[in-house]
Amino acid sequence: MTLFAGLAAFSITPADASGHVDTAALARLLERICAAGAESIGLLGSTGGYAFLSRRERQRAVEAAIECVDGRIPVIVGVGALRTDEAQALARDARKAGASGLLLAPMSYTPLTDEEVLQHISAVAEAGQLPLCIYNNPSTTRFTFTDDLIVRLARLPNIAAVKMPLPAQGDVAGELARMRSRIPEGFSIGYSGDWGAADALLAGCDAWYSVVAGLMPAEAVALTRAARAGDVAEARRLDRAFQPLWNLFKEFGSFRVMYAMADLLGLVGVDPPRPILPLGKTDMARVKDALTRIAL
Amino acid sequence: MTLFAGLAAFSITPADASGHVDTAALARLLERICAAGAESIGLLGSTGGYAFLSRRERQRAVEAAIECVDGRIPVIVGVGALRTDEAQALARDARKAGASGLLLAPMSYTPLTDEEVLQHISAVAEAGQLPLCIYNNPSTTRFTFTDDLIVRLARLPNIAAVKMPLPAQGDVAGELARMRSRIPEGFSIGYSGDWGAADALLAGCDAWYSVVAGLMPAEAVALTRAARAGDVAEARRLDRAFQPLWNLFKEFGSFRVMYAMADLLGLVGVDPPRPILPLGKTDMARVKDALTRIAL
Repeated sequence: MTLFAGLAAFSITPADASGHVDTAALARLLERICAAGAESIGLLGSTGGYAFLSRRERQRAVEAAIECVDGRIPVIVGVGALRTDEAQALARDARKAGASGLLLAPMSYTPLTDEEVLQHISAVAEAGQLPLCIYNNPSTTRFTFTDDLIVRLARLPNIAAVKMPLPAQGDVAGELARMRSRIPEGFSIGYSGDWGAADALLAGCDAWYSVVAGLMPAEAVALTRAARAGDVAEARRLDRAFQPLWNLFKEFGSFRVMYAMADLLGLVGVDPPRPILPLGKTDMARVKDALTRIAL
Repeated sequence: MTLFAGLAAFSITPADASGHVDTAALARLLERICAAGAESIGLLGSTGGYAFLSRRERQRAVEAAIECVDGRIPVIVGVGALRTDEAQALARDARKAGASGLLLAPMSYTPLTDEEVLQHISAVAEAGQLPLCIYNNPSTTRFTFTDDLIVRLARLPNIAAVKMPLPAQGDVAGELARMRSRIPEGFSIGYSGDWGAADALLAGCDAWYSVVAGLMPAEAVALTRAARAGDVAEARRLDRAFQPLWNLFKEFGSFRVMYAMADLLGLVGVDPPRPILPLGKTDMARVKDALTRIAL
């Protein structure tokens, strides 16, 4: 298992007000991720605003990413959709375009049952014919995975990993031990929630699905390497530097803050997709201040 | 205010496995609603599976509905979408096709702020140029409206009504009094949650946004008329007959049960959109049993 291991850097997907992806700007962001030495790119995740983009624009983004990355690191593509057939089509699109893996959240409008999520994910995994990471993200999907459901999914073909939210009680080591005792060998368990990444990596998780790495890949690579090498002091030091930014992620949602960061870092000046509003001036100043604390 | 008053009957939108709407089957369902004497049709609400249909199929459904209903009663069309520009386009489509009103839920992937919902709804209301009902449905959107936000929205052009979920404490009369003291005269407050409809109507709400009325319009009209006439005994009697069905709505979600009902009533035999699964045989038998209790 190397695909879902180490640092997966999730990029925003720059687009204009009507949802047309700026592929040149996207390529610039991905180039920085490759150069920094991240293990993989997470394209069209929640940070990539997949839910706000049409199938055609998502395909354009994947094609541009594959061309830019040119085989240097794997590209993992989010293929979530409200309809199963649509998610299957997106999975086939991603594979044809050259994606290495898929990421699938059980997006929902009508709240889904466990059996519906099981059938949805297995149908997409079968259509995609690529290693798939279950995207367990209750804050956007409002679906809560039980251990039992993850264990059932982990035994199915092509389902290779799970991206977990930070446990409510904070005990990543306990959760890892509990889940690893039940899942097949080689099944990857990684975490999102950047503010808990240092803890999760130090506890021995397989991957950090990182939002901040989409725009600050060098700093996220440094934190990942320190933690995976067991250098607790250095990992904690780097994590502390991120702390003001983590607080803003929690306060505004990382999606909004990332657009502000892209602008402040001079990388790309686009707004998030409406109805999501850009941060106001006062809040932008706070983001700017947080960024100055993270110089490597 | 007559548009958002009385019984609004929400239809399912029969479609094949790839989301192509069966307009003939839809027209058959709407014909029954008109014949039964409902005050309006709710098209492409949550029950109508709007979130699972493409813009083109939603347009086909609206056009078929307008042609079938032929001005007999108003058609209120759900125009929710994750992107503001998409919801605006749907609102313009609905108006051009001849809809009388719009229904808009703040669908979300990234959880929305109050300000984002305010701007989203006002932008769609402006684009649609039709009376719009705010669709307050936390169970599907996971967005919770405050009184303050509803009051702010109620003062904006074209925003004419709100469709409320049943209050957690069950006190509809108290909620109506509290909200009516703050909203403009003529602004309509209606309720969804069929199991609380008798109470809500008896408490003097303006409208019942009814799921069951989409398939059993005559029975829902009878309940509405009894309650609005203040005939408590008759309203309670009709409500009691529905009780086993209400319990199934709560257990399985009304969306799944309505597809079972459409089949059992011999009206249309289609499955809900995947990932939503049809009810199994044992559960279908329970729905069948519940239906036998509701003979007028």
